[in-house]
Amino acid sequence: MTARLRHLTTLENLPRATIEHLLDRAIAMRDACAHGTRKLDVLAGRTVLNLFFEPSTRTRTSFELAARRLGADVVNFDIGFSSTAKGEALYDTLHTLEAMHLDAIIVRHKVSGTPEELVRHAMSGVSVINAGDGNRAHPTQGLLDVLTIRQHRPDFDNLVVTICGDIRHSRVARSDVHALTALGTKEIRLCGPAALLPEAEEFPQCRFITNFDDAIQGADVAIMLRLQKERMAATELPDEAAYFRQYGLDCKRLARAAKGCLVMHPGPLNRGIEIASDVADGAQSRILEQVANGVFVRMAVLGEVLAR
Amino acid sequence: MTARLRHLTTLENLPRATIEHLLDRAIAMRDACAHGTRKLDVLAGRTVLNLFFEPSTRTRTSFELAARRLGADVVNFDIGFSSTAKGEALYDTLHTLEAMHLDAIIVRHKVSGTPEELVRHAMSGVSVINAGDGNRAHPTQGLLDVLTIRQHRPDFDNLVVTICGDIRHSRVARSDVHALTALGTKEIRLCGPAALLPEAEEFPQCRFITNFDDAIQGADVAIMLRLQKERMAATELPDEAAYFRQYGLDCKRLARAAKGCLVMHPGPLNRGIEIASDVADGAQSRILEQVANGVFVRMAVLGEVLAR
Amino acid sequence: MTARLRHLTTLENLPRATIEHLLDRAIAMRDACAHGTRKLDVLAGRTVLNLFFEPSTRTRTSFELAARRLGADVVNFDIGFSSTAKGEALYDTLHTLEAMHLDAIIVRHKVSGTPEELVRHAMSGVSVINAGDGNRAHPTQGLLDVLTIRQHRPDFDNLVVTICGDIRHSRVARSDVHALTALGTKEIRLCGPAALLPEAEEFPQCRFITNFDDAIQGADVAIMLRLQKERMAATELPDEAAYFRQYGLDCKRLARAAKGCLVMHPGPLNRGIEIASDVADGAQSRILEQVANGVFVRMAVLGEVLAR
Repeated sequence: MTARLRHLTTLENLPRATIEHLLDRAIAMRDACAHGTRKLDVLAGRTVLNLFFEPSTRTRTSFELAARRLGADVVNFDIGFSSTAKGEALYDTLHTLEAMHLDAIIVRHKVSGTPEELVRHAMSGVSVINAGDGNRAHPTQGLLDVLTIRQHRPDFDNLVVTICGDIRHSRVARSDVHALTALGTKEIRLCGPAALLPEAEEFPQCRFITNFDDAIQGADVAIMLRLQKERMAATELPDEAAYFRQYGLDCKRLARAAKGCLVMHPGPLNRGIEIASDVADGAQSRILEQVANGVFVRMAVLGEVLAR
Repeated sequence: MTARLRHLTTLENLPRATIEHLLDRAIAMRDACAHGTRKLDVLAGRTVLNLFFEPSTRTRTSFELAARRLGADVVNFDIGFSSTAKGEALYDTLHTLEAMHLDAIIVRHKVSGTPEELVRHAMSGVSVINAGDGNRAHPTQGLLDVLTIRQHRPDFDNLVVTICGDIRHSRVARSDVHALTALGTKEIRLCGPAALLPEAEEFPQCRFITNFDDAIQGADVAIMLRLQKERMAATELPDEAAYFRQYGLDCKRLARAAKGCLVMHPGPLNRGIEIASDVADGAQSRILEQVANGVFVRMAVLGEVLAR
Repeated sequence: MTARLRHLTTLENLPRATIEHLLDRAIAMRDACAHGTRKLDVLAGRTVLNLFFEPSTRTRTSFELAARRLGADVVNFDIGFSSTAKGEALYDTLHTLEAMHLDAIIVRHKVSGTPEELVRHAMSGVSVINAGDGNRAHPTQGLLDVLTIRQHRPDFDNLVVTICGDIRHSRVARSDVHALTALGTKEIRLCGPAALLPEAEEFPQCRFITNFDDAIQGADVAIMLRLQKERMAATELPDEAAYFRQYGLDCKRLARAAKGCLVMHPGPLNRGIEIASDVADGAQSRILEQVANGVFVRMAVLGEVLAR
């Protein structure tokens, strides 16, 4: 039995039981939706606000659908994305929203730590849910990724998971590692150009491998990350084609992985850069399951933090 | 008895019975709203998503109101309008949205054929409704136009309908011709500067007339199209004043039409360019009826494609 | 007993009884919300449209929350803010929206008088609510300000209220003066650089004071206005620091006011320009109460104009 979450800002240091509870809750949401219940009423009369300082139509829509399916109202608070909205202005925005009696604020911000700042400065009973902050955390993505893995391979203590790409700047990778670690994953391999790997001290529990052929060898799960094109310069790779040759997941490389290796990607895809189209659309791809699970995980999180 | 529609991408080749069924359904929607029912619940728990790659606040709002009045949830998925979002990226967006378990996608795109592309690539039970693609089709506009005509003149086999303006680039004109043809309209006249008329082979059932005085003569319905100002260059007309002199509908020209000729325009109006203000606001104008019918037609279409 | 309002465009010349009735209604809304009713259904099936020609996320969100808490649907009609949308185009937009059978239009426009123009040209039963027009009126802000004052000091005939800042260009100040005058406020002081004060003839009931130390002396309420930075040039002040020295509310100045003087600001704050942070966040600040009251006042106004 774990204490109820009031906020969700990161998966780091979250107990295994809490993560498993949220995954179980997501499955319950999925089953309720599958059994013809198009809309639950558990959050009727509650109001959830999307506070996105970075544009992300996919994630915002996933949260919006999750909230509406629970019967909540959703308000999109469209901050000008150019505005830095830092420091005191951010707290004034927070306090203004709190005064309007919102139940939850879903925040995305390019500055790492913003969700915790909001939690620290919140004066009322509002819940803060992190929809991605800087390169630090994207906890609902981490949850939906382990949920997707668990549906196929619940035996985390037997699993080798390879995460490949720009790990250094990836909040997705961080939340994935946090969740995989909590669930007792046998081996987590981090792969990418040396310049795009994090410091070894950050993830002592992981193996760092720069050669993707080695990193994919025998893996049960391959999580490919989206390459931000402005990061290419930091690597010594001349162009995207070279990146794909060294770090792209194609059929040949996938054949080096364990049989039935799950292929995952947080989206949106750069086809032909980090992943080949035939792999992205192939039988082992779980990419669209990830998207579907995203809604269920967000329903679970909203239901958890807003339960009375 | 016609098969139920699952998508609505074009009116071309739609059977007369299907079109009449949708118009009857729109009237039923109108009557339900008029009798004090502010909101029907037939789509409660269903989710409709607006996927507009071109901005169109009027059409988006009309669809949004239609969906909400049927009890559906509406999500606006705001694609950056500058993004071309073509090819595979479009399908990835589609599949992502399908994975989120939406019931209908209302799409507007500047590339003709995009809605059919979505239908071809859809993997789930999602319905696709075309809110305008390139210069090819705008089927709900076509339906609302013939609904407006039918309310005053149900005798299509007696009617002369004149459509005037930039027919060549008009999806409205195409959907109007498709609907009018299906309903057995006696005579459809297409009028405009020669450079803005379509190829004669496209509409063998229509009469092409470049002189508007001739085209309006004895017409029972005049549908005036909005002139996109960047199209002026293709004509040999020096300016908008000259366009209005030759192709604008003013009182004097309206007097050449049949008594009680219905004046229609899909909006928004360029007053003094394709239509004189006193005609747009005059007793024969049906322009605001078109807007009202737009909501009822979209309710009918959503009700049809989303019926269980 | 006063006649029911159908529109709310300004507080000017509104009878005291009408203003008190709206404030009482706002309190009833607050109490209903406080007693656990998360959502009232009095406007179920009604549709409210936000027509904002100037961006204002805070005010739009406050109206949106108010409408949703009464059970209404809310549609945001996103006019390109660069578009002037003047003259006939504005009326065409109005008539188009009316034809879609909306119940209320909440309008913000930079041109003073736009809400009245909409009322004059409205053809149907739609209600128009002003969310701020030019420098003329922001009636719901005026109402929420006097509601906030009344909760602490209902004895308006004993009160000295000081409004400080760019009064000349402030719709907030105008609506505040209208409401305070109607409620019989003992003394209203207008303070600011001479270039930013209105003509004396506009407010014969007010005292004009350019020295803020004098204006705050013995005041029971201090309403600080946001300084639009482009207005600095009109004053003879060299910079914002100089403005703060002369017209900013800090602790020392607040000590000149009457004991317990209420500190108010319509937001968003320019901390260190018109108000010191410790005052904005201090025990006498009512700024967040203003925000909370904003939602209740807007519920009251929507409930009033849309009652059947």
